[in-house]
Amino acid sequence: MDSVSLSEVTVMRKTHLGFMHSFRQPFSGVTISPKFCHSKGSRAISSSVSSTKSQYVYGESLAATADSDYKMNGLTLKNRISSVKERLLLDAFDDEYGGVVVDHGKLPSSPTVFTSMLQSSLSDWRRKGKKGVWLKLPVEQSELEGFEYHHAEKGYVMLTYWIPEEEPCMLPANASHQVGVGGFVLNQFKEVLVVQEKYCTSSNTGLWKLPTGFINESEEIFSGAVREVKEETGVDTDFLEVIAFRHAHNVAFEKSDLFFICMLKPLSDKIIIDNLEIKAAKWMPLVEFVEQPMIKGDKMFKRVIEICEARLKHRYCGLSPHRLVSAFDGRPSSLYYNVVDDDDDPSHSNCRAEFY
Amino acid sequence: MDSVSLSEVTVMRKTHLGFMHSFRQPFSGVTISPKFCHSKGSRAISSSVSSTKSQYVYGESLAATADSDYKMNGLTLKNRISSVKERLLLDAFDDEYGGVVVDHGKLPSSPTVFTSMLQSSLSDWRRKGKKGVWLKLPVEQSELEGFEYHHAEKGYVMLTYWIPEEEPCMLPANASHQVGVGGFVLNQFKEVLVVQEKYCTSSNTGLWKLPTGFINESEEIFSGAVREVKEETGVDTDFLEVIAFRHAHNVAFEKSDLFFICMLKPLSDKIIIDNLEIKAAKWMPLVEFVEQPMIKGDKMFKRVIEICEARLKHRYCGLSPHRLVSAFDGRPSSLYYNVVDDDDDPSHSNCRAEFY
Repeated sequence: MDSVSLSEVTVMRKTHLGFMHSFRQPFSGVTISPKFCHSKGSRAISSSVSSTKSQYVYGESLAATADSDYKMNGLTLKNRISSVKERLLLDAFDDEYGGVVVDHGKLPSSPTVFTSMLQSSLSDWRRKGKKGVWLKLPVEQSELEGFEYHHAEKGYVMLTYWIPEEEPCMLPANASHQVGVGGFVLNQFKEVLVVQEKYCTSSNTGLWKLPTGFINESEEIFSGAVREVKEETGVDTDFLEVIAFRHAHNVAFEKSDLFFICMLKPLSDKIIIDNLEIKAAKWMPLVEFVEQPMIKGDKMFKRVIEICEARLKHRYCGLSPHRLVSAFDGRPSSLYYNVVDDDDDPSHSNCRAEFY
Repeated sequence: MDSVSLSEVTVMRKTHLGFMHSFRQPFSGVTISPKFCHSKGSRAISSSVSSTKSQYVYGESLAATADSDYKMNGLTLKNRISSVKERLLLDAFDDEYGGVVVDHGKLPSSPTVFTSMLQSSLSDWRRKGKKGVWLKLPVEQSELEGFEYHHAEKGYVMLTYWIPEEEPCMLPANASHQVGVGGFVLNQFKEVLVVQEKYCTSSNTGLWKLPTGFINESEEIFSGAVREVKEETGVDTDFLEVIAFRHAHNVAFEKSDLFFICMLKPLSDKIIIDNLEIKAAKWMPLVEFVEQPMIKGDKMFKRVIEICEARLKHRYCGLSPHRLVSAFDGRPSSLYYNVVDDDDDPSHSNCRAEFY
């Protein structure tokens, strides 16, 4: 049975850590091996199914024999139960949110035992003040031989089966990206709005960074950036432009990440922090901000600051959103592009917008 | 039981239809209601579990009574089986890929009957030359009370449980976006590389469009655009810039969509089409391309063509990718930004790059 190391089960934070943090361990994703417990017997969708009275969602199928004794791997279930009852709790690792990741490589084979152990474990974790629980179930446990998981949302899981053996699967893939936003907010005193996060790796303790976060379901990049800044710092802003974006791979849950760096214009200055995610926030002189050792030594961050400074001097154009309706269905969506030189429409003059 | 209309179960294509198509029905996503069959009895993670001999992955749990008779909704299973055996095949709707979407609102309650019907249905669909099968299972069927599905990949499904009742769930969300690319490839004769897709709605029959597609897992936008053009048309290209991107919501599987419009420089002209997805491809005069009625009447497309033309005249700067390593972990990723006016590094002069 595969062992799972702590570093493999680290899961990403809810708050997007921005390009300053997002290569770090908290973004290494859940890479637990897919073995839970091995399926030995004949699974569903076979002619033997009708003669099997019961099948289980977890682990091996247990056939109820005439005398109601449960056979499994040559052992009777009651023996198995007595042996696993000695350890009543599921093996689990701490995650980054004060919760636990169940080690599916060490789960009991019997679904009944698993269910009972899960119940005890939940009580135990609750007593200990644990928060989220992650539980990974491999497709091998599914009764649906030949089906693959396609995607899942809170309320359902979608499975697919590709029939033609001679043709490559042409079904579309699952969603592949998470989208984060970072807000660069500068006031008239050349101070940038920065935060310190509650949950960060030890090497980043004390680092002041831009407010960042993930956009919500169906949220726009421009409104998501304004919302994240407001939530984390209490400061109201107007969206100006996407000035750059970063594309990174194998981030959380092995998915890719698009991170949009947004210029925002402050509309207020009073800071009220979000106590759940943020330890501190303040207006920090830009020169002081870039002098932080973690930032000074980072090529990518250096380039982004150069771009932001060029934008302040109107030597750079970012992309601004334009709500456009397509004739194809009459629905609006946002097209992000920068100014066209000979465009006389002042509403397109994003590059000319002043900050303060 | 909820009925499911054909329009609700349309699923998206593997090929990204670009901003010209992506508002259309094929992108309306799977919005089947999450009811499969109602869970009536006590589910797992309760003290009654240990006294229940068998539980099922599908539908109601069936308790094996002393006489091995199966009770369900007040009917015995044998009666239920004899009644459902009259219709051996599962109800299903055609999808857009020559496959079927199982109507989970009309599934039999018994997992045994379901399994048998699924087997017969798969044989029937195979005989009829059907391709992909979509099967949606709601979380209510899961034995894990209180757990939610978080995400799924081919090989596994991840579930989560949030313990604190007084705190909002702070676990990070699932991947939220799919990412598409479209290639604008213009040759020295002012001809644009266009395709006609095999699978399109009737209103788009005969429409010539830009080559588009989804980027693969962990693929770069710049290499994805070059690959899609090569696959669909056989033409080799060099990536120049992302000139704009579109953000749309509630697209496939109710996820959001980021579509990057890319300028590419042709390196070859011979066309060899991909027979699986493409009906035809050709070099088409740009003036003729924009005169197509479906495109001429579309504000968003009109704006994109204006941008492309401005870029050709060096009056517009798109964003070009720069591989940068962050000091935070030493890993490279791509930062997309446009040229800074007083930047003397010629490698940053994306806006000055010639097309031919």
